[in-house]
Amino acid sequence: MFSSPFASLWLAAVSLNNEFALKPTDDRTRAIAERVFASETKDDDVRDEISLFDVPDDCPILNQELAQHVTEDDDEEKRSVNKIMPFQTVLQVTMDDFELACKGLYRALTIREKYMRLAFQRFPDTPSQFLRKIEGEQWKPEDQVLPVFTSPPKSGEDPFCTKDFPPNLGYVARMKDGVIYVYKDAASADKHQPLNHPGPDLVTFIDDMNFLIALIAQGPTKTYTHRRLKFLMSKFNVHEMLNEMEEMKELKKNPHRDFYNCRKVDTHIHAAACMNQKHLLRFIKKSYRVDADRVVHVLKGKEMTMKELFASLNLHPYDLTVDSLDVHAGRQTFQRFDKFNAKYNPVGASELRDLYMKTENHISGEYFATIIKEVASDLEDARYQYAEPRLSIYGCNPNEWTKLASWFNKHRVFSPHLKWMIQVPRIYDIFRGRNFVPHFGKMLENIFLPIFQATIDPNSNPELSVFLKHVTAFDSVDDESKHSGHMFSTKSPKPEEWDIVKSPSYSYWIYYMYANIARLNQLRKERGMNTFQFRPHCGEAGAVTHLLACFMTADNISHGLNLKKSPVLQYLYYLAQVPIAMSPLSNNSLFLEYNKNPLLEFHKKGLMVSLSTDDPMQFHYTKEPLMEEYAIAAQVFKLSTCDMCEIARNSVLQSGLSAEEKIHFLGTNYLKDGPEGNDIRKTNLAQIRMAYRYETLCYELNLIREGVMAD
Amino acid sequence: MFSSPFASLWLAAVSLNNEFALKPTDDRTRAIAERVFASETKDDDVRDEISLFDVPDDCPILNQELAQHVTEDDDEEKRSVNKIMPFQTVLQVTMDDFELACKGLYRALTIREKYMRLAFQRFPDTPSQFLRKIEGEQWKPEDQVLPVFTSPPKSGEDPFCTKDFPPNLGYVARMKDGVIYVYKDAASADKHQPLNHPGPDLVTFIDDMNFLIALIAQGPTKTYTHRRLKFLMSKFNVHEMLNEMEEMKELKKNPHRDFYNCRKVDTHIHAAACMNQKHLLRFIKKSYRVDADRVVHVLKGKEMTMKELFASLNLHPYDLTVDSLDVHAGRQTFQRFDKFNAKYNPVGASELRDLYMKTENHISGEYFATIIKEVASDLEDARYQYAEPRLSIYGCNPNEWTKLASWFNKHRVFSPHLKWMIQVPRIYDIFRGRNFVPHFGKMLENIFLPIFQATIDPNSNPELSVFLKHVTAFDSVDDESKHSGHMFSTKSPKPEEWDIVKSPSYSYWIYYMYANIARLNQLRKERGMNTFQFRPHCGEAGAVTHLLACFMTADNISHGLNLKKSPVLQYLYYLAQVPIAMSPLSNNSLFLEYNKNPLLEFHKKGLMVSLSTDDPMQFHYTKEPLMEEYAIAAQVFKLSTCDMCEIARNSVLQSGLSAEEKIHFLGTNYLKDGPEGNDIRKTNLAQIRMAYRYETLCYELNLIREGVMAD
Repeated sequence: MFSSPFASLWLAAVSLNNEFALKPTDDRTRAIAERVFASETKDDDVRDEISLFDVPDDCPILNQELAQHVTEDDDEEKRSVNKIMPFQTVLQVTMDDFELACKGLYRALTIREKYMRLAFQRFPDTPSQFLRKIEGEQWKPEDQVLPVFTSPPKSGEDPFCTKDFPPNLGYVARMKDGVIYVYKDAASADKHQPLNHPGPDLVTFIDDMNFLIALIAQGPTKTYTHRRLKFLMSKFNVHEMLNEMEEMKELKKNPHRDFYNCRKVDTHIHAAACMNQKHLLRFIKKSYRVDADRVVHVLKGKEMTMKELFASLNLHPYDLTVDSLDVHAGRQTFQRFDKFNAKYNPVGASELRDLYMKTENHISGEYFATIIKEVASDLEDARYQYAEPRLSIYGCNPNEWTKLASWFNKHRVFSPHLKWMIQVPRIYDIFRGRNFVPHFGKMLENIFLPIFQATIDPNSNPELSVFLKHVTAFDSVDDESKHSGHMFSTKSPKPEEWDIVKSPSYSYWIYYMYANIARLNQLRKERGMNTFQFRPHCGEAGAVTHLLACFMTADNISHGLNLKKSPVLQYLYYLAQVPIAMSPLSNNSLFLEYNKNPLLEFHKKGLMVSLSTDDPMQFHYTKEPLMEEYAIAAQVFKLSTCDMCEIARNSVLQSGLSAEEKIHFLGTNYLKDGPEGNDIRKTNLAQIRMAYRYETLCYELNLIREGVMAD
Repeated sequence: MFSSPFASLWLAAVSLNNEFALKPTDDRTRAIAERVFASETKDDDVRDEISLFDVPDDCPILNQELAQHVTEDDDEEKRSVNKIMPFQTVLQVTMDDFELACKGLYRALTIREKYMRLAFQRFPDTPSQFLRKIEGEQWKPEDQVLPVFTSPPKSGEDPFCTKDFPPNLGYVARMKDGVIYVYKDAASADKHQPLNHPGPDLVTFIDDMNFLIALIAQGPTKTYTHRRLKFLMSKFNVHEMLNEMEEMKELKKNPHRDFYNCRKVDTHIHAAACMNQKHLLRFIKKSYRVDADRVVHVLKGKEMTMKELFASLNLHPYDLTVDSLDVHAGRQTFQRFDKFNAKYNPVGASELRDLYMKTENHISGEYFATIIKEVASDLEDARYQYAEPRLSIYGCNPNEWTKLASWFNKHRVFSPHLKWMIQVPRIYDIFRGRNFVPHFGKMLENIFLPIFQATIDPNSNPELSVFLKHVTAFDSVDDESKHSGHMFSTKSPKPEEWDIVKSPSYSYWIYYMYANIARLNQLRKERGMNTFQFRPHCGEAGAVTHLLACFMTADNISHGLNLKKSPVLQYLYYLAQVPIAMSPLSNNSLFLEYNKNPLLEFHKKGLMVSLSTDDPMQFHYTKEPLMEEYAIAAQVFKLSTCDMCEIARNSVLQSGLSAEEKIHFLGTNYLKDGPEGNDIRKTNLAQIRMAYRYETLCYELNLIREGVMAD
């Protein structure tokens, strides 16, 4: 009956939703999800042919699917959506499909809301209000759940102060099935009677995930979201034509503030590449002039001075140039993440990376600390720029945290212009291959147990407790284009059972990171400590299911390019206003040419995008990498000042800056949606723009409400 | 017989060349030229349909023309060029067409060579050597004609010193037919018996121009040059694939030097917009803090303090922002040169332009001088960057030069990092309309007579004589997309007869600028003074004949975008290595989107391109506009370090930096073509690249030699 191999899959998804969008998924959905997942692990060419999640612009397959669906239910009256919503002539789907899509999208939003609340991450008020309306409930401002960030030290206060930590709770933290639980004491731990810190439930999570997988492959929802996104694009273009000059007029009338002095945060930057190539070169030369005779390295037990180290590499820093340093990405790195990673080694020598860009080496990471402090000092001079550098925790060893915290405290690597993040590279396969860890569970334990312990008894590791105060989020990093071949399901081995050399899938990684962060945040919130957001790299390459896993778990993501490939996910990211830190210059060197970057498209449609540099060392040329990023986007995409200020405001909202700082930079009501939340005197963002965004979002959410309530 | 309305035109052009490429043009050619010219003055849409100079990629019309041509001569044997040149399989033209094209190109090169030599402008050795070979003559190094630039002041030397000028020659300078002649005395002047300073002859010039007009519209030459350019493109792509890593290896081995510390010149920048918007804003605020009570303006005879001036504009500088300053180009300026020009007025107030960006005002241009000196100081700090700002002479009044020179001397606006140029706006129509000048000849006289006089008797105007030492070139500026409707021919009114309000054509302007500069340079060279180059804006918009006029007269040009439209001219600019200062960010805001800019294409084909900012105030965002320009080009076009260093070297070669400076920045043999002329230690440009460029140019020139000698 169906020519397409996926028609039956689609049918199953449809019937699932017809039953009712809120019912837990059954075996049939699981089967669909598995097939979808399987198709994703095939290589790119094959996937391109199948195009499970995407809708071609002329939509022939989907029109067919839609027609089939209509045939299926042809005993029902064909009500056109147009009849009830005159504005919706663009919709052109039958009422059934419309209701179906809306129910699916509604459930998807409730899923995200649930996981955000569980982990003290952000879900904006506006969609929450619509969800409550659909449920016939009252939305209350006190339902708002927010992350907690450490306020900047008051004048005279020492950010490294180890006094005044709360006392030891005496709790016991122990891992079970890949997640750290907190127990009253060892006895409760032995009986696995954890304290009441709600966390995600694996079975429900997989269920939710399978539902979403089916949803993003579901014909009517794909068609509906595709058309809504097209509409959002055209609507913005009309807004621009009508209101561009009005927006500019607002900004011109706004005294004091312009794009240069509105705050912007570099929302995605790796500490090891946060200096530009010229800066690193200068630093290396200077260090040699000062420290040539200092012992900086130990090779096979033998101490080496810097002079000896450079001599062993046949180098003299005096001769070094940006070219021979060779840390900049070029044409050779395009589509070659492996070659790109090698660029982290100055002059191709890992010894120099160790010496200058590591926290742990013979000089206790002194140079790396100095370089970062120089970068911070440049940001302080620039006044309006902030950055969120990421430092690595590998999970190879439980004392990594102590060492990192000791580096942070020893060198006093603090600046009000920096907010710290922890990135966890997904390189289990390498560590397992070298027998550094017995199984994946051990890695998770190494990553999370020390923080639980420092949270229970801060004085047991004061340096770590200080450092954790300044950490705002976790990142998960690696080349997403590598396929693991594994599908995450309830049947997947538990982390402690995962002892093969192969890495688990992206979704598996993400779930266990999230589950631990969620429980950790419960504990920290209870103790009045700052919480951590989950802000993984996602959608830079690889399968679109990555974006699905993060829709469930991440406060915000870095990259998001692959939202291009799934209209359903793209629309969901829009509805939930999931922040996306985009780095078009990084993409341009690695995955996608600048002109083809979806930044402009996402921005026009109203997705919440910010601009970030990723790796100034590899990608940027000038002294102000973040300004370079903005300038190039402004030039190539012809952004208006209002566009740029909107993106800058998004970056502050997305960042780990504390509530005090956000109030200072964005205005008292920064948490409120719509024009009310915008203080143009601080943001230089036109109220017309804010009103447009708010009305448009409410309109889209209201459509969903109408679709769900139509029954 | 011919379907195309231009087929007969083309036929005439062909027969013209068949007679012999070196014969002076006859009436028939003139008729062709007039028709071509006439077609050019039609508006763009019409011209696009006709596409007189362009070759579509699939070339249907030209294949047809070619076929017709072949039919014309079908009694002749059809020798394929491929037979004699195995490498030339890409050529695919008949031998006759090949010879025809080569003869035309040969003559075109001799025309440029003649006019360059006449005005002490540059024509590179390599094409000269091939021309001499064709003529059976010996090329001698002493034939080289070069411009003379003032050396930088030695340590302790005062660049404003008015001593040691050569004595008065007592000559008389007087204008005749739009050109200044120098006479021994007034009596000789009355009899028009000028001293023997060779200059261009109008009739010959028009003859040469008509020949070139016919050539660029000639089918076989269009086809030939189109194919050669395609070949050059493919050849470079092959070179890149084969040698990219080798080039990089050379650069990595090159100690000390990288892109950051190789010299680059901003070869096209207007003094009035040489600061960025943020710099201007800061300066205005600072000036108000210091000078609020200073009288800075006179309105209807009444003196106004700065406070009063700003109050009269309803402004307070404290509230000013980059937005309200409103000097940046945006989406509104695209294709709107008129709107762009209005952006020169801060806050839309011409009073502020007068106060901050003019050399002549109530404070004697003090602020403008200070701003420029601040820009120069930034360049000095950056160490490796130079700029060639352009100041205006309008030709409205003969004392403009004296005033400008007085500003220059009074404020001591000198920096070793700046080389000065004079821009002459083509706004005769406005001045004539307001009755400021009686005819076009008067404008030319106002522009050139004072310099002739200061050259004859430097002590008569010591400040001007000092200033002229630091001036290196003339520019001709205005919106090229305005059509004058006038065609320049021997029948055109002489400048003194041109008394209508309409402006003469671009070519007419260019010829008279050139003719005066050529004669002036003869005189200055004789006196051991520095000479002036002609470096007009050309090919930013408007008719391709602009590029033809400048091929004949200009040492180098700014923009050159329209070379895209004429393969013949593009190939000629390549063969003669005419430098082109390109400003893709400026184009992006005015005429052509960044991705569509031909910079990369021209660079790959081997045209001699440099990068320049045009107007940092309007186009750039960062503190280092020239670096921003390079960075964006590098990112969007994925330029390699070698590409960027080649462009930087081109910019130094193209500039008015003195021979001493060029030797210092590029190496002793900088004037030599090919690898011999490149000192990688100074330029960081790979010898492989230089060898590739040199061999490729020689190969193309040799093809022409073979074509011409084939008879």
